[in-house]
Amino acid sequence: MSLLIVGSVAFDSIESIKGKREKIIGGSAIYASLAASLFSYSRIIGVVGEDYPSDIIQIMNQKGIDTTGLIVQPGDTFSWGGVYSDDFSERTTLFTDLNVFETFNPVLNESHKKSDYVLLGNIHPSLQLSVLDQLESSSNIACDTMNLWIETTLDELKNLISRVDILFVNDEEAGLLAGNKDLSVAAQTILEIGPSFLIIKKGPNGAVLYGEDFEFTIPAFPVKEVFDPTGAGDSFAGGLMAYLAMTGSIEKEILKRAIAAGTILASFCVEEFGVERLLKVTPEEVNERYSILSQLADLDATPLLK
Amino acid sequence: MSLLIVGSVAFDSIESIKGKREKIIGGSAIYASLAASLFSYSRIIGVVGEDYPSDIIQIMNQKGIDTTGLIVQPGDTFSWGGVYSDDFSERTTLFTDLNVFETFNPVLNESHKKSDYVLLGNIHPSLQLSVLDQLESSSNIACDTMNLWIETTLDELKNLISRVDILFVNDEEAGLLAGNKDLSVAAQTILEIGPSFLIIKKGPNGAVLYGEDFEFTIPAFPVKEVFDPTGAGDSFAGGLMAYLAMTGSIEKEILKRAIAAGTILASFCVEEFGVERLLKVTPEEVNERYSILSQLADLDATPLLK
Repeated sequence: MSLLIVGSVAFDSIESIKGKREKIIGGSAIYASLAASLFSYSRIIGVVGEDYPSDIIQIMNQKGIDTTGLIVQPGDTFSWGGVYSDDFSERTTLFTDLNVFETFNPVLNESHKKSDYVLLGNIHPSLQLSVLDQLESSSNIACDTMNLWIETTLDELKNLISRVDILFVNDEEAGLLAGNKDLSVAAQTILEIGPSFLIIKKGPNGAVLYGEDFEFTIPAFPVKEVFDPTGAGDSFAGGLMAYLAMTGSIEKEILKRAIAAGTILASFCVEEFGVERLLKVTPEEVNERYSILSQLADLDATPLLK
Repeated sequence: MSLLIVGSVAFDSIESIKGKREKIIGGSAIYASLAASLFSYSRIIGVVGEDYPSDIIQIMNQKGIDTTGLIVQPGDTFSWGGVYSDDFSERTTLFTDLNVFETFNPVLNESHKKSDYVLLGNIHPSLQLSVLDQLESSSNIACDTMNLWIETTLDELKNLISRVDILFVNDEEAGLLAGNKDLSVAAQTILEIGPSFLIIKKGPNGAVLYGEDFEFTIPAFPVKEVFDPTGAGDSFAGGLMAYLAMTGSIEKEILKRAIAAGTILASFCVEEFGVERLLKVTPEEVNERYSILSQLADLDATPLLK
C-alpha cells in the first residue's frame, strides 16, 4: 500500500565524539524515506533549494522513493548544525538556517491525496494539519512532533493529535504534553486526546507502544558503537510506517513487528554519520537484527512457580 | 539450596505524593528476604536495637526466613527518613540515624558459612568483604552497592566486585563506576573487573543483564499506581537470588527467569508503603504477573522480510 512522508529536507553539520561532518544530507523526510525503503515504496513531500544535489535524488529514486513531491525553490536548502555530548545524552544546536523551509507549504497532488499511510514528520503543526485537510482517503495517519510545538502551539497540536492514528513522542515530550512525568499516567492522558496508539521513544531505553487497553515494550537494539544519533527517530518512524504499509494493517500484532522494524532501522542509522549506513542496509541485515531483537527480551512461557 | 542475605534492618519514615508513614519496617535485608520468601527459604544477617518489634520477627519466621543471624544490640534500630518527588524521579533523605547499625559487624555461624547463594545487600564494602572472607563454600555471590561507595571507597569496592558472581547497580551508578554513561560501554568495563554477570537496574525502564558475550533486557512490570519505591531494588535482588537458589543454577536461561522474578517482586513492593504489599503476595499473583511480563516484549520469530 502507498506511504506518504511529509517532512524536512536539510543539510546537516554534525559533530560528535566520533568525528565531524559538514553539510551532509539530512532532514526527517530523507531519513524516514530511506528507512522506509527496506519495506515499502514511498512518496515524499518537501522543499529544497537550488543548491540541493541531484545525485541524492537519483539514489532515492533507485530505492523506490518517489520524489516528485520534492519541490525546488529559489534559494538555499534548510541547513542545521549541532554537536553531541560525548555520551550522546545531550545535543546542542549550533545554527538553524531555515532558508526555503521558512515558507514551506506542503501541496499534495491527486495521487498523494489517496495515500493509505501517511507519516507527518516533525514540522509546524499547522503544516501537518494542512496535509491532513488535503487527504481524501481514510488514510492511516502517524505524526511526530517536538517540545517546541508543545510549548508554543499546544492547542493546534492537540487538534492535530486528536485526528491521527499514531502519535510519536519521546519520553520528555510525553511528560511535557501530559503534564506528568510518570509515563504510564502520561500515556493515558495523551490517548484521551484521541490517537489510537501512542509510541513513546526512549532512546537507549527502547520504546513503548500504548493502546487503549494494552502496552508493549521493545528494547533498543544493542548497537556496538554510536557515531551520530541524528535522524534515529525519523528512521524509527519511517521503518515502522513502511512495515505497516507493506503488511496493509495497523492491528496490534502487526504494530509490534512494525516497532521492531523501526527499532532496527534506527539502530542502523546511528552507526555512521548522517544517512551513510542507511544507504547500505540490506534485507538480510534487517532479518538478522530482528532475530537478535526478538530474543533480547524473550522469556519462556512456563510459570515461575509450580 | 540455601540463601544468605546480609543487609540493613531499619525503621523508615517515608513521604510520597500518596501519603506518609512514620517508623515503618524497612532495610535491605528485610525487603530482600520478604521478596525471597516467595521462592526460597533464606537466612538473614543484620543488627537491630532493643526497640525492634518481635511481631515482625514472627511474621518473617512464618514465611521461612531464619532470623537467628539478626543480632539485638543495646540501643535503637537504624532509622531513615526520606521524601519522594511527585513523579518519584527524585528522593531526598531527611535524616539518617545509624544507631546500632554504626558498629554492625556481620558474623556468620557455621551454617551461614556453608550458604550456596549469598546476597550482599548495600552496606559498606569492607563489611561485604568481611562476609566474603568468612564463607567456606564456593557460594554464588551477588552484591549490591551505591554511589556513596563508588565515590568514597572505590579500591575496596573494586576488590569486592572482582570476587562476586553477580553485581547489581543502577544506571547512574554504572556510569559512575565505569566513567562512561553509555551503558553498553560501561557494562564491558565493569565486567572486566571480574563479575560473571552485571545487572543494571533502570527503574521504570526495567533492567539489563550483561554477560561476557550476551545481554538480556527486561521491561519494568507496568504498575498501575506507585505508592513508595523504597526497597524496590532490594526486592528485585532478593526475588532474583531466591529464584536462583530455588532452581540451584546461575546459568543464562535461569538468570533470565530470575530477573523476571526480581522484576515482579519489585513491582509488588512499590504498590504500597514499606513492606505492606510484599507481605501479602501469593504464588498465584507471581505467576499471573510473569504471564503478563513474558508477553510484554514478546516478538514472534518470523523474519520481517521474506
